[in-house]
Amino acid sequence: MKVTGIETVPYVIPYHHPVVAASGTLSCAEHVLIRIHTDEGIIGLAEASVRAFVYGESQVSIVEAVRLWFEPALIGSDPFAVEDIATRLAWIPANNTTHGAIDIALHDIRGKAAGMPCWRLLGGSGAPMRVTHILTMGKPMEVADEALEAGARFAISSFKVKVGSKDLKSDIERVAAVRNAVGTNASIYLDANHGWTAEQAIKVLNAMVDYDIDLVEEPSPSEDLVGRQRLARHAAIAVMADESAPTLATATRELVSGSCRALSIKTTRTGFTTSAKLVAVAQALGGRTLIGSQADGMIGTAAALAFSSAHPMLACEPGELDYYTNLKDDLVVEPLQVAAGVLTPSSRPGIGVEIDEDKLRHYKVR
Amino acid sequence: MKVTGIETVPYVIPYHHPVVAASGTLSCAEHVLIRIHTDEGIIGLAEASVRAFVYGESQVSIVEAVRLWFEPALIGSDPFAVEDIATRLAWIPANNTTHGAIDIALHDIRGKAAGMPCWRLLGGSGAPMRVTHILTMGKPMEVADEALEAGARFAISSFKVKVGSKDLKSDIERVAAVRNAVGTNASIYLDANHGWTAEQAIKVLNAMVDYDIDLVEEPSPSEDLVGRQRLARHAAIAVMADESAPTLATATRELVSGSCRALSIKTTRTGFTTSAKLVAVAQALGGRTLIGSQADGMIGTAAALAFSSAHPMLACEPGELDYYTNLKDDLVVEPLQVAAGVLTPSSRPGIGVEIDEDKLRHYKVR
Repeated sequence: MKVTGIETVPYVIPYHHPVVAASGTLSCAEHVLIRIHTDEGIIGLAEASVRAFVYGESQVSIVEAVRLWFEPALIGSDPFAVEDIATRLAWIPANNTTHGAIDIALHDIRGKAAGMPCWRLLGGSGAPMRVTHILTMGKPMEVADEALEAGARFAISSFKVKVGSKDLKSDIERVAAVRNAVGTNASIYLDANHGWTAEQAIKVLNAMVDYDIDLVEEPSPSEDLVGRQRLARHAAIAVMADESAPTLATATRELVSGSCRALSIKTTRTGFTTSAKLVAVAQALGGRTLIGSQADGMIGTAAALAFSSAHPMLACEPGELDYYTNLKDDLVVEPLQVAAGVLTPSSRPGIGVEIDEDKLRHYKVR
Repeated sequence: MKVTGIETVPYVIPYHHPVVAASGTLSCAEHVLIRIHTDEGIIGLAEASVRAFVYGESQVSIVEAVRLWFEPALIGSDPFAVEDIATRLAWIPANNTTHGAIDIALHDIRGKAAGMPCWRLLGGSGAPMRVTHILTMGKPMEVADEALEAGARFAISSFKVKVGSKDLKSDIERVAAVRNAVGTNASIYLDANHGWTAEQAIKVLNAMVDYDIDLVEEPSPSEDLVGRQRLARHAAIAVMADESAPTLATATRELVSGSCRALSIKTTRTGFTTSAKLVAVAQALGGRTLIGSQADGMIGTAAALAFSSAHPMLACEPGELDYYTNLKDDLVVEPLQVAAGVLTPSSRPGIGVEIDEDKLRHYKVR
């Protein structure tokens, strides 16, 4: 089997609510559907998602990177050779979600060619994944209500609370309100999108100890190495690395240095091939891994679900797998549906997604 | 597909020449053929190899470990779920080559079920592997002659020289004789099987600098942490870890501490699943990986070949893949054959090995 070409279709789907984080605000999903075609008619798909202020990609840059570099490198290659291909593509700097989507689309082909879901081909048993709902960065009672609603509608019992604002007191109040609302059995972890300084983080996190917080993601700027070491020593809540650990080398450095004790694994940026290596490194160094959301739509979520349910270390943790509920629509024939607080991966071949071509035509841009 | 049972067949094949290393002498290959049966008739196979003074396993212990622990844990499992199974079997201490063989046999099933060689299923392109010949620990001119013969017969151009004797001068002379015999284009690395002290190793290795030695495997005792750190600082030749790094945790510790800069990957002890994690960790930490031999017969070599040719980091290094030439016979219908200094992996499904049942009956013991 050989790759014959790569199709890119940029599309935009509006959000129900704009998403506010310490790093910026988003009002719609800007994605690029990537489809890798083969000489045997099997098509592998994935979505690259624009996170301009995280990776500096745009829809135009993704389409152009595929045309200029990824497609010429892949044409004629066996799509099964993901290790070889990853090595060959490693020279392409940045373009994180393009790299991720290309690798996922290759794995989708692998699954379809072998007639089995990716999670099985990756060595898992298709475990249902407990879903984490990411709460918006609103006023304490609004956020608490949002958590209650997710609990009532989908039986969700794991929540990520956005913090890292300039108003430390409001951060604490938001966390307190959520914990009071969801009760002691739910899991809560935080994401500060490095909005605090290390010293602020130590103070705020230690003030939150009573709220039984599992982890804090990116409490302080990743370039502040000394501050992060201070934080690891003095804060009672362990750190999860995300933006500071987007590659194998950076993630390893964070774990080895002790700056973090967990990695947010985002298949959207590291695909399946590198994500598996990140899981291996975390396992080797005693770290935890949680599947994270890169503002994924349903296609990206299906991929993250297939990957995480294949890896026992990820499958035993809650995963950020319902971001798509904030999109007003999706492109998928059989939509994902959280039930009893979990998402069960598809048993269809590959990542288990079929595209609704009418909807794709509708949301396609340019 | 479900595992229905695991068959174990111990067998003994004599060596042409006894094998002498700093850690002991071997006169025959004592292996256990492991065959995992499934409800769909597909049978996965691998060999566990007894390395009593490395892992404390015997043929009887391997058969009994499978009967007591591995088989009951696997019956009814999907053989594709190698990640799940590895996690479930992780509690079984020691029994290294039994662990490895079980995982390889599962991967053999995966390949056979998917109708493709393991190297393709693992993401590679079936690269031919340059073969390293492991020289015996004899007198300088005998060892040099052995190297010349391997060069003349198989165009082999990578050699591992056994060192680590009490007679440091003889070690240096052996290395010098081999380098003089094989010329400057061949690769040479050493294996001391921790026969030297750290201080001896520093002295001897620095005396060998002119012989262009690529690596030294296990120069000094692995429990001598301080000595190994001294060695990393003062010896001009980089260290490859083998016996000191038989697991994910130990290998990671050696790499992170700087005690080694390369790992010997032995699928016979870490299977494919954990070996892939070792490769990921080495890649993450800037280390090299070379495929090593666990006194493998042809079955184990075929497995190591399939695995290494799937991973660009291993495939660009020479591999210890001709140990089987010292066995007087083998159990394989289509024997491996080194040509032009390389072994090319089989394109048959799984690890690509078919057992000659007549020979198995002949060499079977008890």
